[in-house]
Amino acid sequence: MDWTYISEVGSHEGQDVTLKGWLYNKRSSGKLHFLLIRDGTGVIQGVVSRADVSPETFDAAGSLTQESSVEVSGRVRADARAPGGYELAVAEVKPVQIAHDYPISPKEHGVDFLMDHRHLWLRSSRQHAILRIRATIISAIRSYLDDHRFTLVDSPILTPSACEGTTTLFETTYFDEKAYLSQSGQLYLESAAMALGKVYCFGPAFRAEKSKTRRHLIEFWIVEPEAAYFEHEDNLRLQEALVSHTVQTVLRERRRELDLLERDVSKLEAVQPPFPRITYDRAIEILRERGIERTWGDDFGAPDETALANLYDRPLFIEKYPSKVKAFYMQPDPSRPELALCDDLLAPEGYGEIIGGSQRIHDLELLERRLDEHQLPREAYEWYLDLRRYGSVPHSGFGLGIERTVAWVCGLEHVRETIPFPRMLYRLYP
Amino acid sequence: MDWTYISEVGSHEGQDVTLKGWLYNKRSSGKLHFLLIRDGTGVIQGVVSRADVSPETFDAAGSLTQESSVEVSGRVRADARAPGGYELAVAEVKPVQIAHDYPISPKEHGVDFLMDHRHLWLRSSRQHAILRIRATIISAIRSYLDDHRFTLVDSPILTPSACEGTTTLFETTYFDEKAYLSQSGQLYLESAAMALGKVYCFGPAFRAEKSKTRRHLIEFWIVEPEAAYFEHEDNLRLQEALVSHTVQTVLRERRRELDLLERDVSKLEAVQPPFPRITYDRAIEILRERGIERTWGDDFGAPDETALANLYDRPLFIEKYPSKVKAFYMQPDPSRPELALCDDLLAPEGYGEIIGGSQRIHDLELLERRLDEHQLPREAYEWYLDLRRYGSVPHSGFGLGIERTVAWVCGLEHVRETIPFPRMLYRLYP
Repeated sequence: MDWTYISEVGSHEGQDVTLKGWLYNKRSSGKLHFLLIRDGTGVIQGVVSRADVSPETFDAAGSLTQESSVEVSGRVRADARAPGGYELAVAEVKPVQIAHDYPISPKEHGVDFLMDHRHLWLRSSRQHAILRIRATIISAIRSYLDDHRFTLVDSPILTPSACEGTTTLFETTYFDEKAYLSQSGQLYLESAAMALGKVYCFGPAFRAEKSKTRRHLIEFWIVEPEAAYFEHEDNLRLQEALVSHTVQTVLRERRRELDLLERDVSKLEAVQPPFPRITYDRAIEILRERGIERTWGDDFGAPDETALANLYDRPLFIEKYPSKVKAFYMQPDPSRPELALCDDLLAPEGYGEIIGGSQRIHDLELLERRLDEHQLPREAYEWYLDLRRYGSVPHSGFGLGIERTVAWVCGLEHVRETIPFPRMLYRLYP
Repeated sequence: MDWTYISEVGSHEGQDVTLKGWLYNKRSSGKLHFLLIRDGTGVIQGVVSRADVSPETFDAAGSLTQESSVEVSGRVRADARAPGGYELAVAEVKPVQIAHDYPISPKEHGVDFLMDHRHLWLRSSRQHAILRIRATIISAIRSYLDDHRFTLVDSPILTPSACEGTTTLFETTYFDEKAYLSQSGQLYLESAAMALGKVYCFGPAFRAEKSKTRRHLIEFWIVEPEAAYFEHEDNLRLQEALVSHTVQTVLRERRRELDLLERDVSKLEAVQPPFPRITYDRAIEILRERGIERTWGDDFGAPDETALANLYDRPLFIEKYPSKVKAFYMQPDPSRPELALCDDLLAPEGYGEIIGGSQRIHDLELLERRLDEHQLPREAYEWYLDLRRYGSVPHSGFGLGIERTVAWVCGLEHVRETIPFPRMLYRLYP
């Protein structure tokens, strides 16, 4: 490579460099063109002075339109007023391709228009900030788990049966059989936890849900740690440690992007363990105290979650829900078997559930009974039952949704901007 | 957590610890039980002496069967003969669950039997070694790209159209439309490269191919870097740097696992840049010199690749294939437009293609012509054509197949053991 990235111009002060990028914006007078150049690593202003360059170069600079691709050479000089601290005294301008009528102008566009042009919308500095924070969240989670001796175990996407019912599953034909797109790798991860102790999977999951809310995507990414011999308490500790580490890493490494998004970082700085915990029972009481009548045994809706989470400045655990509103595989609370040893972790500021977790049933007979109660086909779960036949141990795990976490950390209204190419109800393009 | 992992016993020499794991194997005499305990982080021998423990504890140790889960307490002592350097003088044995008739015994089993019991087969030390090397390969690739300022951009799995034809695609119903499972994120990545410069995606991909070879899986993982302003030469440099880094990282961090697999590590130590390069033309000549007649314009088969790769001690680039055997989006070689600026990277020792890459067409008219020649529907590619309308630049990228890389690095006969739950022709369970 014979060019310099904008993020690295600081180490070339006073030197001549060539940048390769796109025109983000331009201001011109009769004597000067101010070119705002972006290259994916940053943005820099290039100053083209009629007095200093050939007429051809000055005209080439003038010909650049928004999003034209261009190679620009010149000398790096420090400038305290410049966003990155440097600007470029341009000596040469080589247009690569002149863009005509770029569809996204600095004026406001509707969401549908921007979604239809998602492949171009990604070029905005707001989208850069979100995607970089997303990437940092993902690498922070992976590093934390790798450093704590969790082994990555990729669970399959194509599965013969459903983890939690079949109504919201995408179906496909797998040669002579039916197959479904996975909604969770958990059951597979449980078998890996019996092999490797502490494991996680991290991949896409799919929910064919006909809902259109600001918290749902059809295709989303989820990380699912699972650990042998972890009980409910160990599970909660891991969740708060992982979430805190992730948020603090973003604060450290993506401060510029958070500022660009005008995120109130004091809200993120508060995200430190321990997180507050309330039981499901207590949550019902709190809602009632606030005039929201809920019957014991109901699950919470988004407004309930917001009302509860708003009472705290950091993520809130709600633990020990009634078993009957939760999945079949959850371990009962020994002191009150009608409750499950489970938790939801609610992000503050109204972002709702980002984690669902539980201790899993390790007793064979109880698990068989639960499969029957939930009318799930025994033969599809034979391998899963094997884990309770051969060296069963207490174990726990959880799933953390990436897009909701990104929405919360970035302070976004809607999850649609948290993933490069969102898949939503009736939206499959581009 | 109130227990110790086997990988950490070294820092508890002379101390009393509790381990939680499973019985991997046992030898007994009248006076002693030697318990081989595994916990996912390692294996340690626990010695239970009738003279030192209660009769109940001695009997509990005797009752343990293969893969029974157990908590064992005792004192850590150094022992140069022990595999990890330590053994445990057992004081207490608490069986968690006694396993009856564990299906996988130390005797040989057929592959189909083991595949049917994949959820248990994962507990063998050979599978541990492979899965850990897989995890290290994945984290090494991610770290390399993150450290070199590639931004992770997850491409969608559910897509409205096909990158390269529709015959090998899994189809599903996406509300009112048809959708297909992605075979490659490349086209999406190209749009992200125009936004962020250097990007990569890393996720599962799907090929509904009715083939049963030792190199194919129906569901596989692929990493796909893509970079704006990268030309063919930059692309090859990145490939050899990434592959070398990955192999050298495994050698450094997973030596014990490679030894367990009896891998000849000298073969891996040789994997250093630069990698040898030959053109497609030269490859045809070499095959002919060896009596393998190939017509110019044919693609290579697996035996051809093996014959060529065997001539070198490190991965081999074959570059500049005839355009007509390659995908529609590849940039022509300016000096010989019937050739594409593309490459395949063949792993040595007969492991075949692990990378396919190319410079992409950046000229709008040429790309439109190619779509027509390949009879691909223009409207499905309108957004992809937009990338050539608005600030088009030369750009390149490649896809590296994870399972083939794992098979090569581990020295495995077949890719089926390189992924936790392989999806193969007619195999979707467990």
